[in-house]
This record gives sequence, structure tokens and C-alpha cells, in this order.
Amino acid sequence: MVVGLVETAVPTAKSTISSVVKKPTFLSSDPIINVARGDPTIYEPYWKKMGDRCKVVIVGDEFMSYFCNTMNLCWFLLPELDNAIRTLHRVVGNAMVDDDRFIIVGNGSTQLFHALLYALSSPDLPEPINVVAAAPFYSSYPEETKFLRSKLYKWAGDANCYDKDEPYIEVVTSPNNPDGSIRGTVVNREGGKAIHDLAYYWPQYAPITSKADHDAMLFTFSKATGHAGTRIGWAIVKDKVIAAKMVKFIEVSSIGVSREAQLRAAKILGVIADDCRNLDLKGENFFEYGRRLMSERWGKLRELGMKSNGVFSLPKYPRGYCKFTGEYTDSNPAFAWLKSKEGLNCENLLRDKSKIITRGGPSFGVDSTYTRVSMLSRDVEFELLLERLAAIKGTVNGN
Amino acid sequence: MVVGLVETAVPTAKSTISSVVKKPTFLSSDPIINVARGDPTIYEPYWKKMGDRCKVVIVGDEFMSYFCNTMNLCWFLLPELDNAIRTLHRVVGNAMVDDDRFIIVGNGSTQLFHALLYALSSPDLPEPINVVAAAPFYSSYPEETKFLRSKLYKWAGDANCYDKDEPYIEVVTSPNNPDGSIRGTVVNREGGKAIHDLAYYWPQYAPITSKADHDAMLFTFSKATGHAGTRIGWAIVKDKVIAAKMVKFIEVSSIGVSREAQLRAAKILGVIADDCRNLDLKGENFFEYGRRLMSERWGKLRELGMKSNGVFSLPKYPRGYCKFTGEYTDSNPAFAWLKSKEGLNCENLLRDKSKIITRGGPSFGVDSTYTRVSMLSRDVEFELLLERLAAIKGTVNGN
Repeated sequence: MVVGLVETAVPTAKSTISSVVKKPTFLSSDPIINVARGDPTIYEPYWKKMGDRCKVVIVGDEFMSYFCNTMNLCWFLLPELDNAIRTLHRVVGNAMVDDDRFIIVGNGSTQLFHALLYALSSPDLPEPINVVAAAPFYSSYPEETKFLRSKLYKWAGDANCYDKDEPYIEVVTSPNNPDGSIRGTVVNREGGKAIHDLAYYWPQYAPITSKADHDAMLFTFSKATGHAGTRIGWAIVKDKVIAAKMVKFIEVSSIGVSREAQLRAAKILGVIADDCRNLDLKGENFFEYGRRLMSERWGKLRELGMKSNGVFSLPKYPRGYCKFTGEYTDSNPAFAWLKSKEGLNCENLLRDKSKIITRGGPSFGVDSTYTRVSMLSRDVEFELLLERLAAIKGTVNGN
Repeated sequence: MVVGLVETAVPTAKSTISSVVKKPTFLSSDPIINVARGDPTIYEPYWKKMGDRCKVVIVGDEFMSYFCNTMNLCWFLLPELDNAIRTLHRVVGNAMVDDDRFIIVGNGSTQLFHALLYALSSPDLPEPINVVAAAPFYSSYPEETKFLRSKLYKWAGDANCYDKDEPYIEVVTSPNNPDGSIRGTVVNREGGKAIHDLAYYWPQYAPITSKADHDAMLFTFSKATGHAGTRIGWAIVKDKVIAAKMVKFIEVSSIGVSREAQLRAAKILGVIADDCRNLDLKGENFFEYGRRLMSERWGKLRELGMKSNGVFSLPKYPRGYCKFTGEYTDSNPAFAWLKSKEGLNCENLLRDKSKIITRGGPSFGVDSTYTRVSMLSRDVEFELLLERLAAIKGTVNGN
């Protein structure tokens, strides 16, 4: 029996799994729980319940052309998706989407991150532009920035330590991955550029305190609704030249984005927006459902943390007034950022004692007392995760 | 009235269109015909006729996870698509797909081209590896290779002129884009690497003379069936290490490929394979249909070329025994590679005299007496193209 993702083919996870599990608290036949990735399967029951309302049907001769709308700067963006994205942001109030902002669709927000690096850098600069993010930062940013060894941009590490008098791009993730904190830029030098990754700025994860209004903002269908397999992300961009360079990047990288994926995202985002506006809705809208679920999970995890005698602790978040729900709400981040006692390696501890695969602090630019645990797994995995975490206290104390 | 794609948002085409059309043979109100891109809308009527047989239906809770098959090296490849690709290649006989070959899916074959550059290069080499292709070569290869200014690889031009004693990757497109010729590698040095782009190696474009059996082969749904908007391509790769590096590239670039797009490609490729195997099929299978259509178009174009008094001429192709159809067949390439009289600029001639937008020889590494014309437009555009070409003879002679 395997619970969770045994990511045999995913290099980052494979190397973790292939390490021999020493002194197991559980039997070798016990399932590995893999919560290293934020696979958002938590929302499956909701979408199952929504059944036919979210159904898309595509016949043989649809979507044959490369072009969605030749009159739009982003010529591969389906007009229905453009409309659904703007409508949902207006309903939720989490980002400015005035008509003069450009929406650029990408193969996930990952492709749009690459597109922004390209758009914000310049072949005319003598040196690659520095890319920084305040630690702990999303573990993929360094690799995404470095892997093609571009002369346009280079990874320059923790924004908190950045002291070069050179052009830079600061990546700001808010709420932050991995630690859920609400963030702004930290470098703040004249001429500095910023990418605001707002993947988790939705009501189920954090109070919506204001409309985000930055030059370049990234969102992703994966984290908004849980549809990770669709690979749809979008950028909201103020400047036309930057938007045009991003479109160019996506043209040269993949000649656009699947129209089937865009149609499905448009449909589902549209259903959510309709439900949020429908005060007579029987049952909860998606964000209320998600917030209740995340809040329940966080409640259970915090209870365990308090009983763990300091084996692991969790960050605390301030409550905020959420303009979407109209009440004060807690942050319930998509990841739990566990910290173990000084001197312990939290990732190894969970792996060796409990067969829980997580992603350790060093991947995020901090020390190994930290590790990141996905809160978005299926119920069965989450319950097992709680069981294992509850049991770990005794084994650590006993060793 | 606008016929064809007025690609206002596509930089390459925009710059062409924005040039003032001098001395027009046609009125300014006449539509521009844009056959610069190979938008494969020619096949729409076939797929319309296929109606519900190719329908896909996707409900709300499908395809939520990032992962398609964690036991497969290419963990984001839908098993149904893997199966459909292998089955179709076996039925058509155009490529070896033994079980020990790896299938890697990409966001179009464009993304897979990038993935192969990454996989075939090495950060351990002191210099970027040279990327070459014999002219005339696909106009996007240089830009795709150069635009991120990678230190891993660099564009090194026409393979016919390549004389460096350094590591290299040769890109071989066969049948070739733009000129339809059947090609092999031309550099042939020990240790040389090759990418075989077989986008057009399907029965409607060329006789299928043997199963292609190269280390790394690229195919694309766009040109095989005409579904360009789906953005699905696939690579067939022998070496596991290369395949794993390609998977890594796609993970870091876009965390996989839309599962909706993959499902649709699997469905449509499956229908084609079924029809090809069904000898009792009423009507034509897709490839027979496509070959008839392409053959008719080429017949009409050749007739015009012969009557043009040398204003433009077309390449000749040898007939070949096609193992798929079981008869000798002609090549009917997806593009016509027009050559005008010496001293004329073929692209400008067509644009200025006839408001036909094409892509000129210099984009493909050759001189401006050549230009590339898509043969894959809709019927109404193709008929208008023929009309304009028929009229051009008089105007050139008359000037």
C-alpha cells in the first residue's frame, strides 16, 4: 500500500526516497507519506460534488488554429479565460484588474516566472541581472533561474543579504511559500524590479486585506482551485512593453498555451465567481469551503504542535480583516513550516522516524531545523500525517 | 474584410504588415492574405465531419494532480496518450516505437526542441555547444537557440558550412521546413549529436518509405492532425539519461503538460489509428483525406507555376514507394518554397503586388529570391492565394 505520492520519477523526491530510512519507527511495509510537493488534491471532493456544472465538452474541429484572438496583445489567450480571470479578481477583490492591465496566460505560473525574468532583463546590460528573494524563499526559484545558464539573469540569493549596487529583480511571494508570511519587497532600491508571486493570495489561505496593485503579479489555477494538472497560470501586468516581451517568450518557448486547458480554467473560474456573487447559494461557495477545510486542518496540526513538547513548532500569523468574507480571519497557509528543536534536522527526523517525506529548510535558503509540509493532500493522507506526527514525540524523547 | 490571419500581435508578421504596401495591384480595401505561418486550418472540415467521435468530456474533479503516472520516467505523460502515440506510429510505420523507447510529451514540439538542446548540452563543457542546421532551415531554430543567451548552447548557422572541430548538435528536419526535401545529417563527425524533427513525416505530406529510427525524434500534433491550438508534441528517445534530462527540463519550465490537451490528443490520435486499421471504413481515413487535399492543392499551384513565365518556380520531389498506402506517391509538403527570378525579392514581390504575406528566404538562411508559402490555410484563403498568384504574372511582366 502506498499513500501519497511516491515520486519515483521526480528527481528531487527520488533522491530523498532512495536514502535508506534508518531506525524506522514504523515497519518497512508501512506507507511512505509524501508531502514534499504541494499537490492540491485536497479540493477533489468539492469538484466532484460540482459534477456537471463544471463539465467541458470539446468536439473534433474546435481549437485548431494557433490563434485565439489576433487583436489581443496576448494572441494565444482565450477571450473567455481573460474574462473569467478579470471577473473572479473583481469578485474576490484580491488584485487590480483594470481594463488597461494586460493578462498573459502561461503553462502554469512557472512558465510566466521564466517569461518575467526574460522580460525584466536586457541583453544590453554588461552583466546578467541579479535575481533575489528573501529567505525562506520558494525552493524552485534558484533552479528556475540558474538551469539554462542564461547571460541575461543570474540567481543572487537571499534578498535580505543583497548589498550589490547593481540592477536586480526581487521575487516576492505573498503569502510566502514556504512559511505563509505576508510580504513586501525588502531591497527597495531605486530602479529595482519586482515579481509578485501571489499564488496563495486567495481567501482559503489568507485574509484578503486589499487589492494587490503591483507592476507584475502572478497567479496560478493550481493553487486557486486545486487544478494542478491543467497547467494554467496568469500574469497581470501594467506595462505594455513588459507584457509584449512575456508574450514573445511564450511564443518562442511553446507557441502559446493549450486552448483546452484555457477553456476548462475559464469554466471553473466562472462557476466560482457565479457562486460567490449568488447570495442564495445553497451550500458554500468554493472559497468558504476551502477556508473551512484549511482552518480545520490547521486547528488539528496546531493542537499536535502544542503537545509535541517542542519537538516541532509552527509559525503564528496575525488575524486580518478579510474584505471578501467581511470578517476577521486567520491565515491557513498551503504549507506548514515546521521548526524542530535546535540541533535536530527536521526533514531527516520526519523521514527516518515517521516515513514522512518533506522538503527541508536548506532548499528554501535556511537551516535544517525547518521543513515544509504540504497541507493540501487528500484527507486520508492528512489524517495519517497527523497520526505519525502525534507518535513522533515519544520516539524523539525516547532516543 | 480580412481573410487569413492579420497577425497584429505576432511580432514577425506585424513588422511585415506594418510596412506600407507600395504600388498595389489590388485595392487597399482588398484583404491581406497571410500565409507566413503554417496554421493548419486546412483540416477543419474533416474534423467537423467526425463530430462526436472525437468529442472529449471533462468533469470538474478530473486531472487535479500534477502527476499522471508516478511509475513512468515521464511522470506527467498521460498513459492514454503514450499508448495512442505508439499505436499510431505502428499503424503508419513512420517511426520506431519499441517499448524500450521513451516517449516525452511537451507543450508543442517547440518545448521539446528546447528540452533537447538542454539534454544534449553539458554544463561541464568549457564552451557552449554549437547548434547547426543545413540551410534552408526552419526559421525559428536560430531564435529558439539564441533568445535566452544560454551558456550551454549557441547557434552556429548553416550545417553545410560548419567546419569547427568542436562539439555540435545538428538539427535535421525531414521532410524539411521550408523546402520539403528529405534529409539526413550533413556534418557526420564522430561524437556529433542530432535532433530529428519529423513534424511532417506523415502520409499526407510525403511517402512513408521506412520507419525512422534516430536517437531523438520530434513529432507534433499540430502538423500530424492540424490541432495546433492544443499544443501537444512528443519526442521518441532511445537513451534514458537524455530522456530524464528532457523530463527535468519540462518540470523546471512548466511542471509538465496540460492533461486536458493530452486527453484530447489521445482521443483524436486513437480515432485516426482505428480508422487506418479498419478496412471496412466508409469514406477515407484521415491520411488519405489529407493526401488527396494536399495533392489537389499542389496540382493547382504547380499549374500556375508553369504558366508564370518563370516569375516563380517550385521545387521538384522524387516519387517514393509509400509503405503506408502501398503505392508510389508524391511529396505534397506543408509549405511551398517559391523561387522568383534572379534579382527579385520574392517576399516583397508577393506583398507589394498581391498583398500576400509570406516568409522570405533570409529567415531560413538563404537569399531573398525564395519565400515560404503555407499550403495549410482554409479553402477560401487558398483559392484567393491562387487567384492572386495567377494575376501576378502580368503585373511583373508589365513593370
